[in-house]
Amino acid sequence: MSNPFAQLHTAMNQFAAERDWDQFHAPKNLAMALTVEAAELQECFQWLTEAQSQQLDEEQLAAVRDEIADVQLYLIRLAGKLNVDIEQACWDKMQKNAARYPADQVRGSSRKYTHYQE
Amino acid sequence: MSNPFAQLHTAMNQFAAERDWDQFHAPKNLAMALTVEAAELQECFQWLTEAQSQQLDEEQLAAVRDEIADVQLYLIRLAGKLNVDIEQACWDKMQKNAARYPADQVRGSSRKYTHYQE
Amino acid sequence: MSNPFAQLHTAMNQFAAERDWDQFHAPKNLAMALTVEAAELQECFQWLTEAQSQQLDEEQLAAVRDEIADVQLYLIRLAGKLNVDIEQACWDKMQKNAARYPADQVRGSSRKYTHYQE
Amino acid sequence: MSNPFAQLHTAMNQFAAERDWDQFHAPKNLAMALTVEAAELQECFQWLTEAQSQQLDEEQLAAVRDEIADVQLYLIRLAGKLNVDIEQACWDKMQKNAARYPADQVRGSSRKYTHYQE
Repeated sequence: MSNPFAQLHTAMNQFAAERDWDQFHAPKNLAMALTVEAAELQECFQWLTEAQSQQLDEEQLAAVRDEIADVQLYLIRLAGKLNVDIEQACWDKMQKNAARYPADQVRGSSRKYTHYQE
Repeated sequence: MSNPFAQLHTAMNQFAAERDWDQFHAPKNLAMALTVEAAELQECFQWLTEAQSQQLDEEQLAAVRDEIADVQLYLIRLAGKLNVDIEQACWDKMQKNAARYPADQVRGSSRKYTHYQE
Repeated sequence: MSNPFAQLHTAMNQFAAERDWDQFHAPKNLAMALTVEAAELQECFQWLTEAQSQQLDEEQLAAVRDEIADVQLYLIRLAGKLNVDIEQACWDKMQKNAARYPADQVRGSSRKYTHYQE
Repeated sequence: MSNPFAQLHTAMNQFAAERDWDQFHAPKNLAMALTVEAAELQECFQWLTEAQSQQLDEEQLAAVRDEIADVQLYLIRLAGKLNVDIEQACWDKMQKNAARYPADQVRGSSRKYTHYQE
């Protein structure tokens, strides 16, 4: 098996089973935990300028790397509980996004897609 | 190339380049966008009971699937900007977690790892 | 001056001035910090059942109380930077909400207001 | 009664009662809703530079004002459910923060208080 999503999913399931944590891992709770991890990731950047956020030192990058992993692991666990194939969901969503944000209309603008549908 | 992270990363880069969005995609801003998407995912569950969150209907699941993809796509984009290998970061973090939460000590408990280090 | 929002606003301004923190407190950054604090508040509840969340013990409640304060203090600081009168904004928003969620239509339902406008 | 927290609390309780929404408003769920609103507030800023976030136009400010109100209203509702006096919690937390971040040590630095306790 070469798909990293599947491998990580299996490893996470085993990790939770060994700790009897399935009882806590309702999708609702996993979604909460995911947001908490995303906020912890964001916290690494909150007082940095945009320029500083592009030049993290080694200590900052190590912290960010750990938080990226936490977000990814909870996302895999949540998707697994709901039988969502993350990779396929991404490709499908990219197609939607391409339709929502036509390159020739939105070039250089950060406005939300709802602005293009009026 | 069979690694889905790498393929999605390439597709996201192209998507942003076609729209001239690189100027907005400082790591700081991507981390913000990631949290917003995580919150949108969470919003799908906020008034559901834990039991209901395990039995989504088709419409709910479709919405959740799209939000999972949004989180994943921003995570890939952010990690790419920082040259973080998500998959390797996950395996490394799982090792840390295994040390923080020894299975025989934490079984059935949801307490944070800091409780086990006192 | 009897308005707690105004008093806390003044105290927060002085606190930041004494530490020369104004340079970090752009509205964008304060909004990020606010979300991080909201997530820390949420973290207190993420593995609890809804029933447990209604019966916090003394230690849990003390933690929650501190996080509620953190959210409030950043909200006051952010609103102050933008000259937003929080209290008036709340009364105005409640009127909007009353129109969006007519009591006789939404009674007992947690659906989002967009469902009532179709 | 002149305290705006108390007045808004009463108004929120009545609003929820008229809609039979108490059943959804466990502290856990209110904490989730609060984070979602904080993220919506943050979304208003995510693609703006720090400088732009200090010069919102009228439309942007109106959106931000509504989101500030949403955060405040859920915070009041959550605190009310837990019998937390927000104002007192804020004064107590400010004292803690003053001890954690001694002005003469932290001046001009955005480092977290844990850096000052080593």
